[in-house]
Amino acid sequence: MSRRIDLPDLSPLAIGAAILGAGGGGDPYVGRMMAEKAMRATGPVTLLNVDEVPDGSWVIAASGVGAPTILYEKIPSGREAAAAVQRLARHIGVETFAICAAEAGGVNSMIPLIAAAQLGVPVVDADGMGRAFPGLFMETFHIYGMSGTPACFASEHGDLVLLDRLRDNYAYEWLARGVTMRLGGHAFVADYPMTGKDLRQVAIPGTLQLALEIGRSLLEAQSSHADPVEAVCAAAARGGYGSGLRLFTGKVVDVLRRTSDGLARGTITVQGSGPDAGSVMRIDVQNENILAARDGLPICTVPDLVCVLDAANGLPISTERLRYGYRVTVLGIPAPAIMKTAAALAIWGPRAFGYDFDYFPPTQADVQA
Amino acid sequence: MSRRIDLPDLSPLAIGAAILGAGGGGDPYVGRMMAEKAMRATGPVTLLNVDEVPDGSWVIAASGVGAPTILYEKIPSGREAAAAVQRLARHIGVETFAICAAEAGGVNSMIPLIAAAQLGVPVVDADGMGRAFPGLFMETFHIYGMSGTPACFASEHGDLVLLDRLRDNYAYEWLARGVTMRLGGHAFVADYPMTGKDLRQVAIPGTLQLALEIGRSLLEAQSSHADPVEAVCAAAARGGYGSGLRLFTGKVVDVLRRTSDGLARGTITVQGSGPDAGSVMRIDVQNENILAARDGLPICTVPDLVCVLDAANGLPISTERLRYGYRVTVLGIPAPAIMKTAAALAIWGPRAFGYDFDYFPPTQADVQA
Repeated sequence: MSRRIDLPDLSPLAIGAAILGAGGGGDPYVGRMMAEKAMRATGPVTLLNVDEVPDGSWVIAASGVGAPTILYEKIPSGREAAAAVQRLARHIGVETFAICAAEAGGVNSMIPLIAAAQLGVPVVDADGMGRAFPGLFMETFHIYGMSGTPACFASEHGDLVLLDRLRDNYAYEWLARGVTMRLGGHAFVADYPMTGKDLRQVAIPGTLQLALEIGRSLLEAQSSHADPVEAVCAAAARGGYGSGLRLFTGKVVDVLRRTSDGLARGTITVQGSGPDAGSVMRIDVQNENILAARDGLPICTVPDLVCVLDAANGLPISTERLRYGYRVTVLGIPAPAIMKTAAALAIWGPRAFGYDFDYFPPTQADVQA
Repeated sequence: MSRRIDLPDLSPLAIGAAILGAGGGGDPYVGRMMAEKAMRATGPVTLLNVDEVPDGSWVIAASGVGAPTILYEKIPSGREAAAAVQRLARHIGVETFAICAAEAGGVNSMIPLIAAAQLGVPVVDADGMGRAFPGLFMETFHIYGMSGTPACFASEHGDLVLLDRLRDNYAYEWLARGVTMRLGGHAFVADYPMTGKDLRQVAIPGTLQLALEIGRSLLEAQSSHADPVEAVCAAAARGGYGSGLRLFTGKVVDVLRRTSDGLARGTITVQGSGPDAGSVMRIDVQNENILAARDGLPICTVPDLVCVLDAANGLPISTERLRYGYRVTVLGIPAPAIMKTAAALAIWGPRAFGYDFDYFPPTQADVQA
């Protein structure tokens, strides 16, 4: 059943998307401002379930690409995503029935809403990551056989670059990075054009609604003095993800950051407190939180979400804002089954991020070990 | 009057194009091999004068972009330029009436012939540089108001990238470099689409025929034991360029090369002999030979051509092949008037290459000073 996303939804959506961002994906703040501006001009956006898209109708993914922090300095015109979608649809000679998200986590939860509001089309409640990930091929769209190209990149100057046909989605990632860097380090892209029939096969359904519900539950828990972390765990489970596990509670005592291979890498060290006193949690970061290890033992890993929440109010803290002294709760949210097939784990399991072990689900026993 | 370019023309064309390359533009060898292969399959290519293109018919420029030396290691499929032209024509919704050269100097003299042979269309005897230059905006096409985009880049893998609309031709240069680097450092491009009417306004006419005539004259002089340098000078003057001047004769005693800002920069030092004994010539290189200075005094500068010829046989020596001990004749060939308007000198005069003086024509008095 279709619903509407209106202005009051943007704040909880931003919070939920930041949690799905698992520490990365960019702060949804600038995106939320852009979505607010667009929706003030156009009214609410219709959110469709994947089964509401006719088989032969075309859906195009819209997102930002590049370093999200650049958005604070290189201000978007606000029309880029819509321009990219429009140009891509014209390029392939189809009508855009709806927009979907390439990435539900972080700032990219907002970009489809902006483009949809401006183009007067609905958004489909689905994405290709189920969270945030650093690569354009880290998409169920790719994993289950869709081509990222043709794709259209747009800059704030009105520049339009079409990656028309590339040998594969790895070449797409490679070319897209080069184009994005030359467009100033951040750009907007319309990609993975596909029909409703294909979308249903390859997308992770319900992830925008999930982000919205997580955000709403968290805000409601805050205002009713309930436990916001419990509320997030319950909302994730209702949305088709696993019920969240409290992995650790403590104080951030060290944050190490470095940039290599175009990724923000780092390690966060949390000194345990309360039931975790005497233990240490290490969180490895590659743009997103990739792995949580308790006293040296990995206990939660990609593609499951490792989320760092402010212990006081449950709000997510992105890796770029984390620093010494924060009291945090580290939460593990198991990703849904479509993200954990053998094909999916080959793209975004621990080995894809350089670890020499296979994916394993987090367990209560490990957490309490 | 239209003519034909056939297999026996490719060898003199390559020599003449290397002279127009002014030390740069890449060795036409690989391009000539590709053109031979294409023309063996298809027969000769028709060469049209600019006034043979109907006003409303479309001409597309075809060339290689990136470091020409990469062609020796990253072997082209041979179909890239034709694929790029075809895709661009389809993109803008026109029929390709003919191909023209973006750059008559060096390897890019050959690329239009390959695409034209494969597509079964003529080549227009014109280009946008009148020689070789290192930038995609260093084109009379750009100087006199044409847009380089939409442009299509093709790789040997069949990758196609469309730069659809960019803010200006400097953004085009910037994006094109990024795309080319990601396509492996060398790619093929179809760009500056324009009608016959526009082409006549903005192109340098007759430059392919000029290269052909220079090459033929040089080979004929060699076989008749005449002076090949004289033959080159006379052919240039017949082709609408100034009559060449012998700037210097001597031995290469030092070659300094470095790569900075993506350009092959360097300095060549020639110790004078014969009438130039006791003098020294310095040639400054930025991909092409930019400036010739005699005993510290500049005597020939861009956009005029500074060509280094083997003193024994008159054949051009590209900067990458120059080394200690070569006996050389340095020749200055004045470029035609269309390349020396104020608008043109702003793009490729000495100041555009970092010198703090204006363009001046080479004179016999300077040469003998």
